[in-house]
Amino acid sequence: MSNHKILLEESEMPTHWYNVIADMPNKPAPYLAPDGSPIPPQAMEAIFAPALVEQEVSSERWIKIPDEVREIYKLWRPSPLIRAHRLEQFLGTPAKIYFKYEGVSPAGSHKPNSAVAQAYYNKVAGIKRLTTETGAGQWGSSIALAGQMFGLEVRVYMVKVSYEQKPFRRSMMQTWGAEVIPSPSNYTESGRKLLAEDANNPGSLGIAISEAVEEAASRKDTNYTLGSVLNHVLLHQTIIGQETRKQLEKVGDYPDVIFAPCGGGSNVGGMMFPFLADKAAGKNIRLVAVEPTSCPTLTKGHYAYDFGDSVGLTPLMLMYTLGHNFMPPSIHAGGLRYHGDSALVSQLYKEGILEAMAVSQLATFEAGITFAKTQGIIPAPESNHAICAAIQEAKRCKETGESKTILFTLSGHGHFDMASYDKYLAGGLEDYEYPEQAIHDALDHLPKF
Amino acid sequence: MSNHKILLEESEMPTHWYNVIADMPNKPAPYLAPDGSPIPPQAMEAIFAPALVEQEVSSERWIKIPDEVREIYKLWRPSPLIRAHRLEQFLGTPAKIYFKYEGVSPAGSHKPNSAVAQAYYNKVAGIKRLTTETGAGQWGSSIALAGQMFGLEVRVYMVKVSYEQKPFRRSMMQTWGAEVIPSPSNYTESGRKLLAEDANNPGSLGIAISEAVEEAASRKDTNYTLGSVLNHVLLHQTIIGQETRKQLEKVGDYPDVIFAPCGGGSNVGGMMFPFLADKAAGKNIRLVAVEPTSCPTLTKGHYAYDFGDSVGLTPLMLMYTLGHNFMPPSIHAGGLRYHGDSALVSQLYKEGILEAMAVSQLATFEAGITFAKTQGIIPAPESNHAICAAIQEAKRCKETGESKTILFTLSGHGHFDMASYDKYLAGGLEDYEYPEQAIHDALDHLPKF
Repeated sequence: MSNHKILLEESEMPTHWYNVIADMPNKPAPYLAPDGSPIPPQAMEAIFAPALVEQEVSSERWIKIPDEVREIYKLWRPSPLIRAHRLEQFLGTPAKIYFKYEGVSPAGSHKPNSAVAQAYYNKVAGIKRLTTETGAGQWGSSIALAGQMFGLEVRVYMVKVSYEQKPFRRSMMQTWGAEVIPSPSNYTESGRKLLAEDANNPGSLGIAISEAVEEAASRKDTNYTLGSVLNHVLLHQTIIGQETRKQLEKVGDYPDVIFAPCGGGSNVGGMMFPFLADKAAGKNIRLVAVEPTSCPTLTKGHYAYDFGDSVGLTPLMLMYTLGHNFMPPSIHAGGLRYHGDSALVSQLYKEGILEAMAVSQLATFEAGITFAKTQGIIPAPESNHAICAAIQEAKRCKETGESKTILFTLSGHGHFDMASYDKYLAGGLEDYEYPEQAIHDALDHLPKF
Repeated sequence: MSNHKILLEESEMPTHWYNVIADMPNKPAPYLAPDGSPIPPQAMEAIFAPALVEQEVSSERWIKIPDEVREIYKLWRPSPLIRAHRLEQFLGTPAKIYFKYEGVSPAGSHKPNSAVAQAYYNKVAGIKRLTTETGAGQWGSSIALAGQMFGLEVRVYMVKVSYEQKPFRRSMMQTWGAEVIPSPSNYTESGRKLLAEDANNPGSLGIAISEAVEEAASRKDTNYTLGSVLNHVLLHQTIIGQETRKQLEKVGDYPDVIFAPCGGGSNVGGMMFPFLADKAAGKNIRLVAVEPTSCPTLTKGHYAYDFGDSVGLTPLMLMYTLGHNFMPPSIHAGGLRYHGDSALVSQLYKEGILEAMAVSQLATFEAGITFAKTQGIIPAPESNHAICAAIQEAKRCKETGESKTILFTLSGHGHFDMASYDKYLAGGLEDYEYPEQAIHDALDHLPKF
């Protein structure tokens, strides 16, 4: 049997991030103000480091990864590419299945790839403190880790109900020295206002974003950080796809189809953008974003300008959206509960370059357990979406006899999601189709200008 | 800066386990029955696979790792050896610090190294089911994983209070298909008896062992498995030290001192035994077992024949012991709360070949947090004992200006121990010195024959 793990030495780690904007057939639509006027990039410098704003709008194909960032990446990168021999055998498929395992980072997901870069550029810009919001805690813990690595203070506004019900990711952030504040809080104007109305307000991701942005906007020494959606975040994640290309070259293989879970788009961009140029050059490769049926942004949403957050603080972005007032059902893949999607991913999907599919919650947990039982690793519920799609494809190959090469991103481990597995195993989880009526009604709430 | 990670290809993974008995200056003392008569190895076949009993008493230096076991190991092995550059810089030490990271296994610790081997040999022997006991869940989850890999049913008796208070490792075991039973249970005679006396009995590790052993002894298709202490368990763990030797050779280095956490001895044996022959050949290397001050088996215990369990079911073993009726204080390094120690480790310590030291709980958590803040990885509380000792040594090197090479085993990650970190960060943990009087009183309870 061939090797399970395909490894790269630290010296083989990519030296540059890949900027897909350089190779897009059409340039990205601009970010707009609520009145429809274009937003100058400099306006974003109120809360983001200048280098990150520059990356947000850059059309340079290759952007150098600073040595200081590479040095931190090397604590866990390059991450392994793994041939899922045991899963293949279990399925009896002629397909080859590879997965890129991002759960080896100290925070347990791909998120630190951007957190480390964001912390570094803020450090260089003289910033002393970072704020962010977190729900389940994947992004909050990544920025806590990254801030610690560069000596920055980190304050994480954590949705109060998560703060109380999910203490372990909170402890993880605190172990790395971050301050974790249940939101809404008394630290901000928006928090105080909500608490005055209802001292027991359980919080929401929208409220936590408002608090984190308000604090960053009001303090010169403090900037805000975001873990997905924005161009520069997807840029940093392209190290995933680039490493994967090198690893597949080592074994003389190339994917026929790639699956990645899709919430805000950081996994899709990170794995797939580095394969886009091949596709443009005529290579026969399918790039498939996998989202939950409960949050079918790409497969059922509207392609329209909308706010990136739920309260209307961000610029308007042209993207697939279920409406910024979208109330996500409480599925267990918390990282995929987002009303919109990255503008880059949305545009490439609109143009037919990326594909998308939706899978149901029960099917994703079933796939995750099959994976754990064959390959050992217990995946994050978000990652189970990609696994589910990969297994479906492998089963199709069994029917047709095709020995395709299937690749997916295993974006993180599920060590902090065992309560969700517990509920699934006890029969307490349900499927949820986001209602057609709600999708239709969202049209009424999209910004008009 | 030199590489952080020193990797081995799967093809470089050791092909044999190393049996230290071949090189011990004195042969191990025999296991005895309560009346003092030697126990024939065959008696152990009532609950252990014949191949494992053979390994328990073998004096062959090299024992081949079956291909089927190597194939499962390759899901995560060889594990990385990592140079702790950032910890060195933080401490300002001239010492070089390396750690072998065993937290990359799906169960998150070194325990699967033996669990996989035990499952395999039981499968070969025609056994269909495995039983074991678990407290915090490290061993239980490892045998759940290993059983699944070889298609064996697994029943884990989990101390009832842990079953209720620590649901996440339980969910992990269930995800891998194991049946997890709160102990005491109605499945065994000993469980039923205890429940009849007190339906709310919270259980203990001793009770859970009794249940797991009783079931294995009473069913032909079922065997028992143990995660530490026994010779064959330490044998399987020697893959850790052998890989480490190869990895250090790659960078032209050799340790002046090795630290490993010590509970039942599987980490100490696993890492240190493969370096023992060098020491015997005159190499200047210190091998230091690190235990908690709250459970100072080697540093303060009695070298005497005692039971391996708390209720007197096992053979008598000559070892360091605090008395099998030892009541472990509820420290957070659950894996180190054991009254005795491996007979092999005990004898080598008695003969001055291994050293031992004890560290206090608060110091270990402080060390673990320093490690997390510099290297990223959040370690298991057990592993923090080795880290604490390594940091102390590195600080001594700073004082003396010595550029020693320090190596330690990072036996597992702390993802399922965040409640302990939480309590430490909130100031809720205390130090605990095991009382001298209790150590003295233990003499009265040692078996007499």
